[in-house]
Amino acid sequence: MSLPKPFQDVINAFSRLPGIGPKTASRLTFYLWRSPQELSLELAHALLALKTETSVCPRCFFLMASGQGVCEICADSERQRDVLCVVEEALDVIALERSGVYRGLYHVLQGVLSPIEGVGPQDLRIAELLQRLEREAFQEVILATNPSLEGEATAMYLKQRLQGYGVKVTRLARGLPVGGDLEYADPNTLLRALLGRQEMGGEG
Amino acid sequence: MSLPKPFQDVINAFSRLPGIGPKTASRLTFYLWRSPQELSLELAHALLALKTETSVCPRCFFLMASGQGVCEICADSERQRDVLCVVEEALDVIALERSGVYRGLYHVLQGVLSPIEGVGPQDLRIAELLQRLEREAFQEVILATNPSLEGEATAMYLKQRLQGYGVKVTRLARGLPVGGDLEYADPNTLLRALLGRQEMGGEG
Repeated sequence: MSLPKPFQDVINAFSRLPGIGPKTASRLTFYLWRSPQELSLELAHALLALKTETSVCPRCFFLMASGQGVCEICADSERQRDVLCVVEEALDVIALERSGVYRGLYHVLQGVLSPIEGVGPQDLRIAELLQRLEREAFQEVILATNPSLEGEATAMYLKQRLQGYGVKVTRLARGLPVGGDLEYADPNTLLRALLGRQEMGGEG
Repeated sequence: MSLPKPFQDVINAFSRLPGIGPKTASRLTFYLWRSPQELSLELAHALLALKTETSVCPRCFFLMASGQGVCEICADSERQRDVLCVVEEALDVIALERSGVYRGLYHVLQGVLSPIEGVGPQDLRIAELLQRLEREAFQEVILATNPSLEGEATAMYLKQRLQGYGVKVTRLARGLPVGGDLEYADPNTLLRALLGRQEMGGEG
């Protein structure tokens, strides 16, 4: 293959992203090459700022702009402060926000319990979650980990850890496809899952 | 949605690319955000160079690095100089090169005849193709436009225009799926299509 280096460089960089193979990478590169330069520059400049100008909220571990005290959700005075939704990662917050029905706060675990991959409770933001339960006045904690094996196990574990904190512990309704990934759910499914959430019983 | 602006900017930029919806854009952005910064920087810098450091070969209209006289394929002294493969666009050259069996030269039409979209012969690099046939010593011209309606019509048109130039005019074998797109073909299909190419008869 005799492609100019700048062209091949873009193909190679795209190919390193998940779900993008060499053909898709070629098509994307070719599209950008044929389009006005603004499109490439817009993506390039956004990428340059991505890591340097974003940070993690010290309270809920969602994304925030660098230099802020807490993220926009934690700082939003119009959000309900008595409901906390616990998710695996920031993408799940984005998915839930898209459904438009949840107005409480979040807590991002930054992962899920996985004995196979050696991820234990100390690797997740569980200690920080328990601290928040002591300091903030939550009435309800929604365990919104994925409806996968690891997500269910993590929810079960958290349910036990939350005993004695005097909060109602709920789980998203099983409208979610079992074995699926929360972030792929469409807004309507998420909406029904939120509205149909049920208090977590002894047997889970 | 309360995403930090640099994060939302990357999602927006990705969403403007073909085949990438908002969810895929979120996933790609989140992946880059979690990965070492080198990955974002690599893509950003490659994008910055994409338009400024690449150009179009004045002979065959394939891609080339800026400042070169002709592209690497035209300049390659080891390529067969008596066979010319005519394709719709640069991506098709990339696909044919991937098959590894063709060692001749190329001519990129930069499009395809399409009365509906108002693309006529004067909009393609056909005048330049005929000039090359006068100046270079081709024995054979392979018409490798897509096996689509427009691609077939363009091949038929070119076949007529090439009469009197004393070259054998061939078309890629019908191993290609009719109605498909050349660049999506796998290397083996392209290989068989190249090996089975047939001289273009009166009825096409």
